[in-house]
Amino acid sequence: MTQHVAVVIGAGGMGQAIARRVGPSAHLLVADHSQEVLDAATAQLTDEGHQVTAQRVDVSARKPVAALAEQAASLGPVQSVVHTAGLSPVQAPVPAILAVDLLGVALVLEEFGEVVAPGGAGLVIASMAGHFHPGLPREQERQLAATPADELLSLPICDASAFADSGTAYAFAKYANRLRVQAASTAWGARGARINSISPGVIATPMGRAELGSEHGDGMRMMIDASNAKRTGTPADIAAAAEFLLGPAASFISGTDLLVDGGAVAAVTSLTP
Amino acid sequence: MTQHVAVVIGAGGMGQAIARRVGPSAHLLVADHSQEVLDAATAQLTDEGHQVTAQRVDVSARKPVAALAEQAASLGPVQSVVHTAGLSPVQAPVPAILAVDLLGVALVLEEFGEVVAPGGAGLVIASMAGHFHPGLPREQERQLAATPADELLSLPICDASAFADSGTAYAFAKYANRLRVQAASTAWGARGARINSISPGVIATPMGRAELGSEHGDGMRMMIDASNAKRTGTPADIAAAAEFLLGPAASFISGTDLLVDGGAVAAVTSLTP
Amino acid sequence: MTQHVAVVIGAGGMGQAIARRVGPSAHLLVADHSQEVLDAATAQLTDEGHQVTAQRVDVSARKPVAALAEQAASLGPVQSVVHTAGLSPVQAPVPAILAVDLLGVALVLEEFGEVVAPGGAGLVIASMAGHFHPGLPREQERQLAATPADELLSLPICDASAFADSGTAYAFAKYANRLRVQAASTAWGARGARINSISPGVIATPMGRAELGSEHGDGMRMMIDASNAKRTGTPADIAAAAEFLLGPAASFISGTDLLVDGGAVAAVTSLTP
Amino acid sequence: MTQHVAVVIGAGGMGQAIARRVGPSAHLLVADHSQEVLDAATAQLTDEGHQVTAQRVDVSARKPVAALAEQAASLGPVQSVVHTAGLSPVQAPVPAILAVDLLGVALVLEEFGEVVAPGGAGLVIASMAGHFHPGLPREQERQLAATPADELLSLPICDASAFADSGTAYAFAKYANRLRVQAASTAWGARGARINSISPGVIATPMGRAELGSEHGDGMRMMIDASNAKRTGTPADIAAAAEFLLGPAASFISGTDLLVDGGAVAAVTSLTP
Repeated sequence: MTQHVAVVIGAGGMGQAIARRVGPSAHLLVADHSQEVLDAATAQLTDEGHQVTAQRVDVSARKPVAALAEQAASLGPVQSVVHTAGLSPVQAPVPAILAVDLLGVALVLEEFGEVVAPGGAGLVIASMAGHFHPGLPREQERQLAATPADELLSLPICDASAFADSGTAYAFAKYANRLRVQAASTAWGARGARINSISPGVIATPMGRAELGSEHGDGMRMMIDASNAKRTGTPADIAAAAEFLLGPAASFISGTDLLVDGGAVAAVTSLTP
Repeated sequence: MTQHVAVVIGAGGMGQAIARRVGPSAHLLVADHSQEVLDAATAQLTDEGHQVTAQRVDVSARKPVAALAEQAASLGPVQSVVHTAGLSPVQAPVPAILAVDLLGVALVLEEFGEVVAPGGAGLVIASMAGHFHPGLPREQERQLAATPADELLSLPICDASAFADSGTAYAFAKYANRLRVQAASTAWGARGARINSISPGVIATPMGRAELGSEHGDGMRMMIDASNAKRTGTPADIAAAAEFLLGPAASFISGTDLLVDGGAVAAVTSLTP
Repeated sequence: MTQHVAVVIGAGGMGQAIARRVGPSAHLLVADHSQEVLDAATAQLTDEGHQVTAQRVDVSARKPVAALAEQAASLGPVQSVVHTAGLSPVQAPVPAILAVDLLGVALVLEEFGEVVAPGGAGLVIASMAGHFHPGLPREQERQLAATPADELLSLPICDASAFADSGTAYAFAKYANRLRVQAASTAWGARGARINSISPGVIATPMGRAELGSEHGDGMRMMIDASNAKRTGTPADIAAAAEFLLGPAASFISGTDLLVDGGAVAAVTSLTP
Repeated sequence: MTQHVAVVIGAGGMGQAIARRVGPSAHLLVADHSQEVLDAATAQLTDEGHQVTAQRVDVSARKPVAALAEQAASLGPVQSVVHTAGLSPVQAPVPAILAVDLLGVALVLEEFGEVVAPGGAGLVIASMAGHFHPGLPREQERQLAATPADELLSLPICDASAFADSGTAYAFAKYANRLRVQAASTAWGARGARINSISPGVIATPMGRAELGSEHGDGMRMMIDASNAKRTGTPADIAAAAEFLLGPAASFISGTDLLVDGGAVAAVTSLTP
């Protein structure tokens, strides 16, 4: 009997919540940049009865991402690929944001697009920040969507000096994630697999709390108060959407993004002249 | 014991499929413009054991929409509101498209936004056609989002003469649906309810078949062949997404759109220079 | 790309409803004893965009069941096997009930237990009638559970003359279905697949209506009135439970039965001295 | 806007996993006998963004259970009631098992049966141990099902001296839980609410690990190896089944038990002469 594999990249709050959803029927391959976070998540998930293989990964470099994909394929049919790894603008400078949040997603889409099983599905955790990005001319969108990952950071529009601050780079990267997922849908489809993204709003994770505690905290709280849900999201909200998008009921959904933000983007858009 | 109410406007292929999903625990209020379609759907759903109240409605006029909302509220707490009524560009001229597909959605959002129960949810069936719309300047987007329904068709951008053909008006209306849903999210949230849209791709309904049989059929088939799923969608695909968005697992999703198109928009976008 | 196969045996009300749930991501292999029912269901499902292969089957004989399993395996990995075929006591005499409702299930479990894919799942539609059966001594339970299908009807306890009427034989067969599913769980597990049953209550299908129109109708209505749900079930109620049991969220559920009867058995049991 | 309430009694591994599923759209009322367990679970769930009210409860006495139900009703419409509190036979002597696992469930069913909201649902976590119980004569079943909670432990069959050891009392209590849930279905139905139980197999919780480490551990491991799933369950497996049974898709399921044991009972039954 061959057990299928579910890969969860990024073992923080959302990664663990999603791992619990896809874990019971799978061999979990959990990856993170931080050995400490990885060890803690692996211990917790193993303790809860999941079958877990752990592997460190730096998503901003092709070699470790390719090694992770190879490891996944060696464990069995790769049914689910969930990419939650990301740096927050309150945690990192512009170049790191671009390396992890922009290039990292591109590398994962490329490498796992070559090992995902027929009937499998991938999911990238983007951010509502990408929905606040004003958009780009079509030609630049195409560059972000289609430039091979290895050349992505060499694009003029991806030059670190082009960004005023980490927040701007973050919104750009998360906007680009959606373009990248959209473009990857065709290649993943050729293998009989799907790929989508979720754009979370403010979620109660350590990263979310760091953002609420930053200089942007007051603005974020105003946005939450004005929103439909009037609350922060929980990892469980994201995990529920992830389970739906990765599961058989979503077999006609690919190449798109689902905004799970409690209506925050809607509220801000409605209030913006 | 008070049974909750699920309203399904538009009793065609998708409407029936969604009614079956939300029906078992609810009192179904099913509405359609066509008495014949309404009678057939009511007979079928009743035959399958659902509790159904039927009411004719012309969604392009406030009075019948308000009467439908009043009827819904009189039957019990209005838990679900599903708006599937729409005209296809192969069925109708520009003014009818604007009246039903643009104004109709606006009226339903306004009237049902005043009767939906706390914890309830609404869903508008838009179309992937709206995702092919090139977008509008922010000021015009705001007009489409926020102009009271009764004045909507008086906006210069909504003038029938501004549209080359029904297809153009249809894409415009479906694009506007998303703006309208986004803007309605705040008002619905004030009642503790959510509102979202689904943008279906080519679905195997009578309307979908009519489109495949039209002059646009060859283009649609090419798009399907290039897409991730390489198939037309089924009413069940849309119903599954509807069930998710209307249900408790989606409580942090509001004011947004979910594209359920088999990756067709992604494929076309990737192929477009 | 290999598409997985979902087999639906019995193309009546419940079979169609379940086919719609498992159909979108699968190649549907639909089977029925009646060419007329099969043609109608195939036409309807194809019309709704599902990919359907139809095959006639007499589930009371090994050869056609084996041929159906072979056909399934030839179409792709057999992910789902749903057995809804059955005769109602108001439709058939004792020998036919035993042949279809008892032997038929045993044959399907044996033949499809040899072709189901790893990660796949099977589902047998039994009946709440089996829950009203008083039970049997352990030795007879073991006979019903473990006797090879080909010898099943030769057991003394399965002799047609042992049953007062079709209703008694029906309850016996449906009780035996659960024992059979329970016993099959180990063999299916050896292939990495699961197998369960659902015991529906009174469902609004043609068969359910026939029963409500029979001499047992008054008793059934009293039972419904006394039950938790105070309504007949819909095919959608059964389809929702089927989707859950066949899906990844139920990966730790096997060899058991789920009663989906609106609390009718509970009500009758509570009222019985 | 009135937010609905989800009550989770027992804040251990399963309680927390279920709380995460029902929590996002609800006000969680979490209760436990241990202040330490309660504090830890409350901190964790609050940290994940859930709205939590905590209350200590001793489920073996009416007063605190009634106080908990009153608190629930004061917070809003009581949509979900999940009873996971229980003592394991490796943790407690016979009288404690009977007080918590037998009487506790009876009290919760009575008290919350008077506050659950229309459309709400309850869930009792029983155990596969109840499925290994050989059954009782009908008259004793009726006593266990229908005797008012306050008199339950005074029944001769519930006398502590009647049980050889804690394990026997545990199986008896868990068997009785199902009878009790079945009988409660009518009363809950009169309020428009449902009630069911789940019987988990060996689950990777601290309680499950304690059992695997006990004198019964070897037998349990043999059972797991012989089972369909060949693994211990995870809290997520139970939470997924709980979410299904508590949700709208299960509106026709009441007064019954769902065995979530990886096929362990089926394996043991098949191997038992």
